[in-house]
Amino acid sequence: MSDNKLPGIATDAVLVKSEPVPDDFVEVKGIDYSKDSAYNMRATDLIDSMKTMGFQASSLGKACDIINSMREWRGKHIDSLPEHERGGEFDEDGVQKTTIFMGFTSNLISSGIRDTLRYLVQHKMVSAIVASAGGIEEDLIKCLAPTYMGEFSLPGKGLRDKGMNRIGNLLVPNDNYCKFEEWIVPILDKCLEEQEAEMTKLGSEGMNAGSGACWTPSKLIDRLGKEINDESSVLYWAHKNKIPIFCPALTDGSIGDMLFFHTFKASPQHLRLDIVEDIRKINSMSMEASQAGMIILGGGLIKHHICNACLMRNGADYAVYINTGQEFDGSDAGARPDEAVSWGKIKADASSVKVYADVSVVLPLIVAATFASKRP
Amino acid sequence: MSDNKLPGIATDAVLVKSEPVPDDFVEVKGIDYSKDSAYNMRATDLIDSMKTMGFQASSLGKACDIINSMREWRGKHIDSLPEHERGGEFDEDGVQKTTIFMGFTSNLISSGIRDTLRYLVQHKMVSAIVASAGGIEEDLIKCLAPTYMGEFSLPGKGLRDKGMNRIGNLLVPNDNYCKFEEWIVPILDKCLEEQEAEMTKLGSEGMNAGSGACWTPSKLIDRLGKEINDESSVLYWAHKNKIPIFCPALTDGSIGDMLFFHTFKASPQHLRLDIVEDIRKINSMSMEASQAGMIILGGGLIKHHICNACLMRNGADYAVYINTGQEFDGSDAGARPDEAVSWGKIKADASSVKVYADVSVVLPLIVAATFASKRP
Amino acid sequence: MSDNKLPGIATDAVLVKSEPVPDDFVEVKGIDYSKDSAYNMRATDLIDSMKTMGFQASSLGKACDIINSMREWRGKHIDSLPEHERGGEFDEDGVQKTTIFMGFTSNLISSGIRDTLRYLVQHKMVSAIVASAGGIEEDLIKCLAPTYMGEFSLPGKGLRDKGMNRIGNLLVPNDNYCKFEEWIVPILDKCLEEQEAEMTKLGSEGMNAGSGACWTPSKLIDRLGKEINDESSVLYWAHKNKIPIFCPALTDGSIGDMLFFHTFKASPQHLRLDIVEDIRKINSMSMEASQAGMIILGGGLIKHHICNACLMRNGADYAVYINTGQEFDGSDAGARPDEAVSWGKIKADASSVKVYADVSVVLPLIVAATFASKRP
Amino acid sequence: MSDNKLPGIATDAVLVKSEPVPDDFVEVKGIDYSKDSAYNMRATDLIDSMKTMGFQASSLGKACDIINSMREWRGKHIDSLPEHERGGEFDEDGVQKTTIFMGFTSNLISSGIRDTLRYLVQHKMVSAIVASAGGIEEDLIKCLAPTYMGEFSLPGKGLRDKGMNRIGNLLVPNDNYCKFEEWIVPILDKCLEEQEAEMTKLGSEGMNAGSGACWTPSKLIDRLGKEINDESSVLYWAHKNKIPIFCPALTDGSIGDMLFFHTFKASPQHLRLDIVEDIRKINSMSMEASQAGMIILGGGLIKHHICNACLMRNGADYAVYINTGQEFDGSDAGARPDEAVSWGKIKADASSVKVYADVSVVLPLIVAATFASKRP
Repeated sequence: MSDNKLPGIATDAVLVKSEPVPDDFVEVKGIDYSKDSAYNMRATDLIDSMKTMGFQASSLGKACDIINSMREWRGKHIDSLPEHERGGEFDEDGVQKTTIFMGFTSNLISSGIRDTLRYLVQHKMVSAIVASAGGIEEDLIKCLAPTYMGEFSLPGKGLRDKGMNRIGNLLVPNDNYCKFEEWIVPILDKCLEEQEAEMTKLGSEGMNAGSGACWTPSKLIDRLGKEINDESSVLYWAHKNKIPIFCPALTDGSIGDMLFFHTFKASPQHLRLDIVEDIRKINSMSMEASQAGMIILGGGLIKHHICNACLMRNGADYAVYINTGQEFDGSDAGARPDEAVSWGKIKADASSVKVYADVSVVLPLIVAATFASKRP
Repeated sequence: MSDNKLPGIATDAVLVKSEPVPDDFVEVKGIDYSKDSAYNMRATDLIDSMKTMGFQASSLGKACDIINSMREWRGKHIDSLPEHERGGEFDEDGVQKTTIFMGFTSNLISSGIRDTLRYLVQHKMVSAIVASAGGIEEDLIKCLAPTYMGEFSLPGKGLRDKGMNRIGNLLVPNDNYCKFEEWIVPILDKCLEEQEAEMTKLGSEGMNAGSGACWTPSKLIDRLGKEINDESSVLYWAHKNKIPIFCPALTDGSIGDMLFFHTFKASPQHLRLDIVEDIRKINSMSMEASQAGMIILGGGLIKHHICNACLMRNGADYAVYINTGQEFDGSDAGARPDEAVSWGKIKADASSVKVYADVSVVLPLIVAATFASKRP
Repeated sequence: MSDNKLPGIATDAVLVKSEPVPDDFVEVKGIDYSKDSAYNMRATDLIDSMKTMGFQASSLGKACDIINSMREWRGKHIDSLPEHERGGEFDEDGVQKTTIFMGFTSNLISSGIRDTLRYLVQHKMVSAIVASAGGIEEDLIKCLAPTYMGEFSLPGKGLRDKGMNRIGNLLVPNDNYCKFEEWIVPILDKCLEEQEAEMTKLGSEGMNAGSGACWTPSKLIDRLGKEINDESSVLYWAHKNKIPIFCPALTDGSIGDMLFFHTFKASPQHLRLDIVEDIRKINSMSMEASQAGMIILGGGLIKHHICNACLMRNGADYAVYINTGQEFDGSDAGARPDEAVSWGKIKADASSVKVYADVSVVLPLIVAATFASKRP
Repeated sequence: MSDNKLPGIATDAVLVKSEPVPDDFVEVKGIDYSKDSAYNMRATDLIDSMKTMGFQASSLGKACDIINSMREWRGKHIDSLPEHERGGEFDEDGVQKTTIFMGFTSNLISSGIRDTLRYLVQHKMVSAIVASAGGIEEDLIKCLAPTYMGEFSLPGKGLRDKGMNRIGNLLVPNDNYCKFEEWIVPILDKCLEEQEAEMTKLGSEGMNAGSGACWTPSKLIDRLGKEINDESSVLYWAHKNKIPIFCPALTDGSIGDMLFFHTFKASPQHLRLDIVEDIRKINSMSMEASQAGMIILGGGLIKHHICNACLMRNGADYAVYINTGQEFDGSDAGARPDEAVSWGKIKADASSVKVYADVSVVLPLIVAATFASKRP
């Protein structure tokens, strides 16, 4: 190339002209520090500013918009509906509202996010919950003894020697699980007794739909919520407010350890937990919902389970995912809402967003700007 | 600062002297391209070179070493053991070997990794499997119709309109699920019949340990493996080789949809799936194992379930994790093996490694260099 | 294993006793919704609650603590110091304060985070900046024409056809770069003229230290900040407040395109940008600093450059990293602060934290709870 | 909902019919273990199998296809071209071939991947390189003393006390940098002498295009490659094979430390490194290329720099990205190839792929199946 002349290819490529910007384009802008509200900001002001910041800030803003929309939606009055359409959720005035499915992973209950989750359940702000097993037992255990702050880098051997279990940068003394065992065994004894009594009464009809003889994860969780009788507990309020908590793999954690031990203690009697009745229950909630919203905190089972339930109604109307999973490995955890659209789990015209973030970093802010923007 | 003189602080900091390098330090080095084996490399040569490359290359090398160690370990001859210690796995000569728990997520069965997983099961190279629900049904569905290559970026609405379900960059025609329904319904009918017959015979004792009347996820999976009768199937070989497949949340997927539909079809009869018997089964395998190894492909439930089972024996002896999860959000998926050490799920002196990678990118190479380094 | 007896190994492992919890252990807890401050929360209340939540919430809390500490630190009065120790930063009363190095990647200037970065520079809250090339030019370009909100999934071909450049979920019309060219070419002409004049005057001594004849990235950036003369600009305020902006690879972006074109236009004259003088300048700032703090927003060059400068003083005293990089691939972007400790880039006893998050999601909150907790 | 009847909505949604599968759809399949080639697999067989596996396995397969395509492309014979079109690369027969730009981050040179990178340069398989500063100096330092295997979890304080610098799971004794200083200082002295001599001779014309008086990063790197004179070095072979290595931020690392020290030692003389001449050089290579291919290993500066150079030719024809960056934070590191299409940095009809993986885990396999599928 000559040293003196620049070939046009470069300038043509660099200085391409654009088409006019459409009128509905939104300018990127951030916080306006000329306003008093920019200092020690309130959640709603912060979220408003973030909507036009781009990247995950705007995703966070969108998540709040979607949550507000799902909360505000109202349908018909119950009196105007035929009998068989009177499923789903209604507000205090008897008007249809959105059925909100919230899913969370175990670690969030171990963290201080538990208080925020409890707040939502206490005030009936969600309709159903899907949790992993640790999300059940850690809520109960926290009523018995605290979890502590630790470090991600604490070596495992030293911790095991001290009986300290690490969950990320949290520590749970193993004594907490000993206390949990003491607390739960008498309850499991009672549950088994009830199972035995019913089955003896009903025989093989105890297995029938609606017999009430069979324990399921959601029934056991409801019982545990009743027994714990502690206002700091998510399960307590779920029981009190009749918000079902689903946990299809309830044996996958400390409760599983206790159930396992219990099979020996009770032998040959054997507490059973049926997962088929629960799938019918959650799917039925989805079908009956007037509108369905999903708030999914984390990935794995709890995400898939809510999405799958929403397939039964041909898709959720609102979806907010918050997790750190990535799609490149084809995992369900990492799948974007648009993948769920292909399956009919989210409606094509639904409002949906995925916020790529550790839940602990964004949920307090989201809740402060939506569910808890005002004192209930 | 004067323009002419460099303060000693900078040179002192930059030119700190090191202590002598210990003799056992291993030099970083890569492929030796002077060797013929460096061209169109074989798996074992590639892995050997990667061990001293650092980063995840060396983690991959370590994973292969650990897999080879868990496969090669041998304990005592069965004849030298008292009756009650004759649990666990034995080789063809009657000598104790490692019980290997392998977990995988659903997407791996959807991908071409399924053939590799099937190979391991077909040749009895693993002792037990934990899978998520999709990992069960997609294996069966692939016997009925294929899955296709797609793109991560295909828009969901267009796919739903065409009845194409996306899993990352894969596509599953929804017809496949229709075929699955046709195939499974008669089997579920049969399973329900058997449940009814047993319960009628045994009454409330049908619930007892060992009664055989209660279905569990692992029992149903075994039956499905028998029924599919297809050599391309992981479930088929698991059935044939008596390798249990655990899936505590078996209702969380298409099988759950079918079980849900079935409760209406069969009403008031109701197929039940008990998860307590299965937790006893997997925990018992862990306790009986002479040595326990974990190979965990992906995160979420399948990872936690195997780790939790290994707590029952005070820790696995070998652990290989492969996934893309990160620890910073406190998720179990992202937890390093050292977190499991704090819980007693991996022994403090165990060999363990986490490979941070999409399984599809590394497992074919790992298996080619270990389980399939020679034709069986 | 007998069906009736549970081997002690399982209960022993599960029910390990813990050592007593040390007195200084901090309990995990979240937001106290009994308080009015829990509703539509203010930044400082939110951050206070997050400190004991665990995971990245507590890392975020720690980041705020460290930022507050680096801002509050005060050393000696300038009058009490010998002449040669009067480098570094002083507050309005003449007392030593922390030299704060802030680094950010280009995308943050493209996003609405730019307003927050400008706020910090406008109010002299940082001492020096390291940016990537896009972080320089996008600040200037935004004074000429806006950037718009887009979507991550917009297909590239359609955008190129319309002359719309995508940055994540943002869109920059290519016309903006045409406007930038028009704006910058006369300035480059002028810079070249000045170079020529000085070199003609000084001859080979123009290359000497302190000659002033050589352009460097930081000098050119300062000039651009002066010329743009726009209060919305980071560069404008940096110029005004004499806060140097370092950008060793200033040619790596649109400015580089313009400099490239300019070499043809000006041929055989040739504007030169020397990077050696700038490394001396930033390293000298580090050495002179009484205390050094790092606030690193993103990864790559800007992170390494600040850390490396802090090596010259045997380590920073405070370090806050915020990015999404992971350490598993051995990248500097993903390296934890503790890796920098091994190099002497952060002091062993420094306060440091890494927040694993997209900067856009956390920086507005962090700034609102620290730098902008009160109106300046 | 009635207990006895399943609403059609669920079955309709679950059992949606699909459109017929197009003929060109490719079935997902994995390794065929009935073949001998499935055991201790060779790189090309492994890659062939991975192409239809999905997820990143198929991305890896595609990366190999693209690399093979860029290597195989041939254009016109040089004799058939007018003088001014005789730029770019030609094969041994005088036929146009692809200009391949390869970028890599510093850590890859620290790792055993260096040997693979050197192999490519030694055999003239790439046309130009962009590296970060560490990628230059660590190559030289490894000729002076080795790097060692370490662990990601080694505490920084203990390492600093021993003078051991950590790079992920690698360790570099600080003595290596002392040796580097001894080696490089005399070379810098010589470079400065040459600068002085030329500038004295040419006066202000020494700054002109083509004067040869100004040092640039690529010229200094070439000189270092000549001086090191060691066949294990990437720089040595780059010098020998006239493959330019660009590093716009060459001061950002140990070389920068040495240059910094040198300004004091040489004062008032001052070695200068101009980055404008280098941007002209790399952009010119891009414009002259008959076809342009990009192989980008890692993120940050090295990725952006190659993409930006390819904008000068209105886009690369082939692009392979390998890194662990994610797009959600709007970083250039995480941007997919399709974002570069919007900018004109990759042609809309180019072959491109991003492999989401640590380079160390996939590059050895990729090279073994492409560049090194046969001994050269």
